Amino acid sequence: MNQSESQADLRWTTQQRNRGDRLARVQAALGGALDGKVVQAAHIVDLLNAVLEPGDRVCLEGNNQKQADFLGKALTKVDTGRVHDLHMLLSVLSLPEHLDVFDKGIASRLDFSFSGPQAGRLAKLAQAGKLNIGAIHTYLELFARYFIDLTPRVALVAAEMADREGNLYTGPNTEDTPAIAEATAFKSGIVIAQVNRIVDKLPRVDIPGDWVGYVVQSPTPYYIEPLFTRDPAQISEIQVLMAMMAIKGIYAEYEIERLNHGIGFDTAAIELLLPTYAASLGLKGKIARHWALNPHPALIPAIEAGFVESVHSFGSELGMEKYISARPDVFFVGPDGSMRSNRAFSQAAGHYACDMFIGSTLQIDLQGNSSTATLGRIAGFGGAPNMGADARGRRHPSKAWLKAGEQARAGRNVIPRGQKLVVQMVETFREHMAPAFVEKLDAWQLAEQANMAIPPVMIYGDDVTHILTEEGIANLLLCRTEEEREQAIRGVAGYTPVGMGRDKRMVENLRDRGIVQRPEDLGIDKRMATRDLLAAKNMKGLVRASGGLYDPPKRFRNW
Amino acid sequence: MNQSESQADLRWTTQQRNRGDRLARVQAALGGALDGKVVQAAHIVDLLNAVLEPGDRVCLEGNNQKQADFLGKALTKVDTGRVHDLHMLLSVLSLPEHLDVFDKGIASRLDFSFSGPQAGRLAKLAQAGKLNIGAIHTYLELFARYFIDLTPRVALVAAEMADREGNLYTGPNTEDTPAIAEATAFKSGIVIAQVNRIVDKLPRVDIPGDWVGYVVQSPTPYYIEPLFTRDPAQISEIQVLMAMMAIKGIYAEYEIERLNHGIGFDTAAIELLLPTYAASLGLKGKIARHWALNPHPALIPAIEAGFVESVHSFGSELGMEKYISARPDVFFVGPDGSMRSNRAFSQAAGHYACDMFIGSTLQIDLQGNSSTATLGRIAGFGGAPNMGADARGRRHPSKAWLKAGEQARAGRNVIPRGQKLVVQMVETFREHMAPAFVEKLDAWQLAEQANMAIPPVMIYGDDVTHILTEEGIANLLLCRTEEEREQAIRGVAGYTPVGMGRDKRMVENLRDRGIVQRPEDLGIDKRMATRDLLAAKNMKGLVRASGGLYDPPKRFRNW
Repeated sequence: MNQSESQADLRWTTQQRNRGDRLARVQAALGGALDGKVVQAAHIVDLLNAVLEPGDRVCLEGNNQKQADFLGKALTKVDTGRVHDLHMLLSVLSLPEHLDVFDKGIASRLDFSFSGPQAGRLAKLAQAGKLNIGAIHTYLELFARYFIDLTPRVALVAAEMADREGNLYTGPNTEDTPAIAEATAFKSGIVIAQVNRIVDKLPRVDIPGDWVGYVVQSPTPYYIEPLFTRDPAQISEIQVLMAMMAIKGIYAEYEIERLNHGIGFDTAAIELLLPTYAASLGLKGKIARHWALNPHPALIPAIEAGFVESVHSFGSELGMEKYISARPDVFFVGPDGSMRSNRAFSQAAGHYACDMFIGSTLQIDLQGNSSTATLGRIAGFGGAPNMGADARGRRHPSKAWLKAGEQARAGRNVIPRGQKLVVQMVETFREHMAPAFVEKLDAWQLAEQANMAIPPVMIYGDDVTHILTEEGIANLLLCRTEEEREQAIRGVAGYTPVGMGRDKRMVENLRDRGIVQRPEDLGIDKRMATRDLLAAKNMKGLVRASGGLYDPPKRFRNW
Repeated sequence: MNQSESQADLRWTTQQRNRGDRLARVQAALGGALDGKVVQAAHIVDLLNAVLEPGDRVCLEGNNQKQADFLGKALTKVDTGRVHDLHMLLSVLSLPEHLDVFDKGIASRLDFSFSGPQAGRLAKLAQAGKLNIGAIHTYLELFARYFIDLTPRVALVAAEMADREGNLYTGPNTEDTPAIAEATAFKSGIVIAQVNRIVDKLPRVDIPGDWVGYVVQSPTPYYIEPLFTRDPAQISEIQVLMAMMAIKGIYAEYEIERLNHGIGFDTAAIELLLPTYAASLGLKGKIARHWALNPHPALIPAIEAGFVESVHSFGSELGMEKYISARPDVFFVGPDGSMRSNRAFSQAAGHYACDMFIGSTLQIDLQGNSSTATLGRIAGFGGAPNMGADARGRRHPSKAWLKAGEQARAGRNVIPRGQKLVVQMVETFREHMAPAFVEKLDAWQLAEQANMAIPPVMIYGDDVTHILTEEGIANLLLCRTEEEREQAIRGVAGYTPVGMGRDKRMVENLRDRGIVQRPEDLGIDKRMATRDLLAAKNMKGLVRASGGLYDPPKRFRNW
């Protein structure tokens, strides 16, 4: 009985025993150079050679902001005789080394969310057969799979500081680390953290040391990009006009109190119009009170004006640290005085606790499907699919949610249900005069090129409620037929071929019914749409609005 | 400048300063009786009187499993002159004291997810004007709001152990604690934990001590209910037949590898048929490999047979501790040897990483909307709305997801998209011969009674893909009109009035098209549907299957 019991045990503890083997290999390889959990930077490649096994699922913390770049570089230097065919899991492929591992034969399979700057090279590597893409995910979906069928064997993460017990302080850029570390540590995996500093006492503990296998102080602090900073000097008057339409035609109309903004100048313009235009409409305290949002510098004037009650963040933003610490009523700040972001929770909040998602896109088709996928680039969509989808599990009502649901169902014999507002905001032509409205998305061709099961759509037409361009707002909730929907979209598509192809009488009819609204239908005088409405007109204005607390990265400083 | 700066600071630190005031009041009230963060059980009411303020949002950890019952009871004893009009946030209202606070005027507002055993009393209190219900949520939605507009000022949580620095060990029943503690601690709130034991060294840290204000050792361990245990002895042959249909007609048909099971005998029967019936169909390794699931005892035989590769859990289950610890290849087990569950991550996994949700309900209407709401009871739905909704943000493909999406869209000119399988499994009559199929859900009347904005639907008809009864399977994905859908539902509704009202010719036509399938259409011989197919026939059989590791609670032991 005892013997069969211990045999049975062995059958069910392969991962734990394999973990033990790995730790023993490290001990053998590093020996005296290992100081408890602390590994010297010089030994990092040796550590990886000892820890990793062929075929391992390895999660490398490439986030939307912070990057485990030291570990990522080290991974490109492992012995390919020992370590190969890794299955890489990354939220964001943003650094060259994220792809170098495929080029060098260290890794062969990839699951990810977003690859912005590396999208072109990724497509080339895929075509050359150097890597096999499992799938593209929205962030929360990728984290979800870490607990189901994509649990990492080894996670390479980044933190500000560690102590000698392996406790981690992630500070404001907590981001994906808790989700990655938990999934790995509790399935007999090994978490390796690069930190900017090893200290005796952490400001606070973000990840308990029990969950962490090894820590290494990297020679330079982890790389981070100020992704969400937009210089107000570059906001155009067309963007001001569109922001006015958004505020009056959507935010005020639905009384949207809880929301997420996508990245870009369009939404930055809205943020900068809250304390001016929105305040002049008497909307303070009525709209835009609670946010799931990175700490956008463009939101500073609205915060200072008392428009914003709370902001929970996916990640932080370079230069915003002092401002955030000084505004703990608004941001999620710990007893130590610095923020804790959390991408998993903020994405859940964006999905379930927000009434609206508004963002930009590159292409919209006649059914309202939108995508940022373009030929020769495999880019992914980050958080947009999660936040730009109707949260069909949501059950708590709000005015905005009920009104959108009513509009979608009016006159139909179906049970009442609320609906999330999903707004796509685009100028009819983007750079190089490429039309934003197309008959067929490039995503179709890309799917064929890259051998995807279905075209990579960012936000599906049946989840989109409004399309906003400089020509007007199309309210797709009120459309009753496919044809109405198509004409509503054509009706705001301006001088693009799609816009020119409109049935003018039908569009005018839609306008009479309030489905298509022009600025003048909203009582907006286009002559008012000037940059004077921006609460800050440049980076200096943002710094001033922050009382000097915001400290923009150098490249945004031109004074 | 300095003066205006410090004034500005004060404007933005009201919560931090208020937190300081509360801590100072505790110091004044408890004085020498306070030992760092450790409070004696005898002083718990004094602590609450000092910490709380009228109108506070208070999250009391009433989970689906573990209960902060000692803190909940203490809350009913506070001085109502000092503490009143609290806004209570609870995942699950399961204990009488959860409602006593409303009866006594200590609390007046409630946001929650599920109230099973207290649903009747909740409805009465609401009607008597003793409490104001904010809304009913699915779990992940409620957690999401903790980071947006329902952030707790004070959280009362439960853990196994604490050390003197306030670090918490939650053990296998981690459940909601991480989400609650994080939202509270990082918005200047105060986390108070009841623990079964205060020790010098924890087995592991689940919640860092920095996040925790006070810990108190409760006189008795926290209350916990074995909610997910189903005695196989009570499974009927009708349930065996339905389980056979589920396995052959849905699991095998769509090759479902990743899934969640709802609670109940219907799904327990499926679990117990995996190593017998499903194995005989050659399905081992092809279906039901990865689960988001509590550690159901009924899953033991399937695990032992090697059907199950991994299980991530919302919470734990009483008596399963030793079995889980001995199966770390399957469950998420820490280096300390015990599981860490996490309701937030497992709900995210159920939503985004699973291909199917299958569960039971009380009522289904002609459009396929289902609800467990009945008159005079305000019950909520727990996790079902989140897992029983099409995850429209999902972007990664699987066979099951693509096939469901194709079936839903075949012949329609829309962009391809996958779809989640959402199966409602019911016998046509439930106890007391109440029909499961109705023309109109009780939810409509309840909504009027309780003044809800819309009827409380658990799973909406447009998210349901299959309805399974002892009469057969209706595949709603293949229905092309509202009428077809209604007849497909009537076609499996047996001898209920809804079933009797079917158009027989149309139902036969649906059967010819495979939309309605009878057991014989699936090649299932009803005579085979006996209890002999159950891999364990009673609790003793489950214990035996576990090699003696499963230790059922007393009330389930009849040997």
